[in-house]
Amino acid sequence: MADLEAAERTDAFPVDRRNRVKRRPDRGRYDRASIYPILDAAMVCHIAYVLDGQPYCTPTGFWREGDTLYWHGSSASRMIERQGEGLPVCLTVTHLDAIVQARCGFNHSINYRSVMAYGTARMVEGEEAKLRAMDAFMDRFFPGRSKMVRPASRQEIKATSFVWMDIEQASGKIRDVPPHDDEDDYAVPAWTAMFPVRQIVGEPVECERQMPGLPRGSDTAEYQAGQRLDEILTRTYRQTFG
Amino acid sequence: MADLEAAERTDAFPVDRRNRVKRRPDRGRYDRASIYPILDAAMVCHIAYVLDGQPYCTPTGFWREGDTLYWHGSSASRMIERQGEGLPVCLTVTHLDAIVQARCGFNHSINYRSVMAYGTARMVEGEEAKLRAMDAFMDRFFPGRSKMVRPASRQEIKATSFVWMDIEQASGKIRDVPPHDDEDDYAVPAWTAMFPVRQIVGEPVECERQMPGLPRGSDTAEYQAGQRLDEILTRTYRQTFG
Repeated sequence: MADLEAAERTDAFPVDRRNRVKRRPDRGRYDRASIYPILDAAMVCHIAYVLDGQPYCTPTGFWREGDTLYWHGSSASRMIERQGEGLPVCLTVTHLDAIVQARCGFNHSINYRSVMAYGTARMVEGEEAKLRAMDAFMDRFFPGRSKMVRPASRQEIKATSFVWMDIEQASGKIRDVPPHDDEDDYAVPAWTAMFPVRQIVGEPVECERQMPGLPRGSDTAEYQAGQRLDEILTRTYRQTFG
Repeated sequence: MADLEAAERTDAFPVDRRNRVKRRPDRGRYDRASIYPILDAAMVCHIAYVLDGQPYCTPTGFWREGDTLYWHGSSASRMIERQGEGLPVCLTVTHLDAIVQARCGFNHSINYRSVMAYGTARMVEGEEAKLRAMDAFMDRFFPGRSKMVRPASRQEIKATSFVWMDIEQASGKIRDVPPHDDEDDYAVPAWTAMFPVRQIVGEPVECERQMPGLPRGSDTAEYQAGQRLDEILTRTYRQTFG
């Protein structure tokens, strides 16, 4: 048990004022075993950064390799122009899992899993590194797809930007609590429940110019209609990055 | 037509360097008729703010009243302690609508609706204003519920914090495009589709201490299993705020 705790400590990101969970610290997580799965179950993150004192919060597609996070941006965007210089950012991922009612306003809540990751953002530079990032981005969501499609042209590589940062610190937060109330309030005649929320994948809409007779590829095998996106993404992540 | 365009301009948030959509400006929206529905279909937003030069990106529950946004925070949180002073923030809402494949990496994309709203965050002050915010927050998601539950105690009001900001500027961005490729690439033998993604509400999990025989309340009428959360939230929003 002591060994396990030591291992968990070793596997944790350093904690200080920046990433310590202040509100409900009992729900805070700093170990990679808690933080990685929350990140790897998501496709979209929100990135906070500052330009001239003004904060911006930008949604974008991202993925993780070890302790490094990569995200997609365009050469045209304000964020990328400036973040390449090495800009402090906070990258946040949130999964909404349930809406939780109660018999007083105060005890209403939501169940969720979230991670806030801190680091210094820099551009992915060079044709080879950018091409590798393009392929990893595709394969992370659709395992093996980079080998199925037309390779990127130099012009496309030039027009695509990726940003990366090493996770210097991170905090995870998980709330998974059913409805509960103060003891006296169970006598309040208000029907009370928890409503689970899931991101679900629907039936694929095939390209109108699909090649006749072409079978569906193995890269989309996990994207079965009715499945949870977070579970699909966890599986495709493992297939590509192990 | 000229009148309609004038009305749309009148109804638009002012545009400058801060909120102009640079990447794919054709997808940018600045009029309230485009921006409000994206906000009102969401329960969770991400808020970017800066403390001592460090950006933070925090997820939280929020709602809109006119041009004012309100969000929930705790007196204990770092954000609230400081944002009450009047802190510049960017509040972002993102709906992921589909994952879109293509026959080259460059043309892969996602369909989405997002809003970035800019303003100066301040605390909701005073017992009466805080109580009104607590009720509005509950009713925005569960119309009429504030009248069904036990009224908030002074201690609960004290322990609850809300932040508000008037939207000074905002930009919306909508992408809703099926798979497409460069003309030559349609000959690439890669099965290609778009996968719709929806946040779906599941079967309610009733409180284990539900009062026997109590019927389900009208406040949860819209939360039918299998329905889209963004559509539910749009309807509950209209029921409460018209």
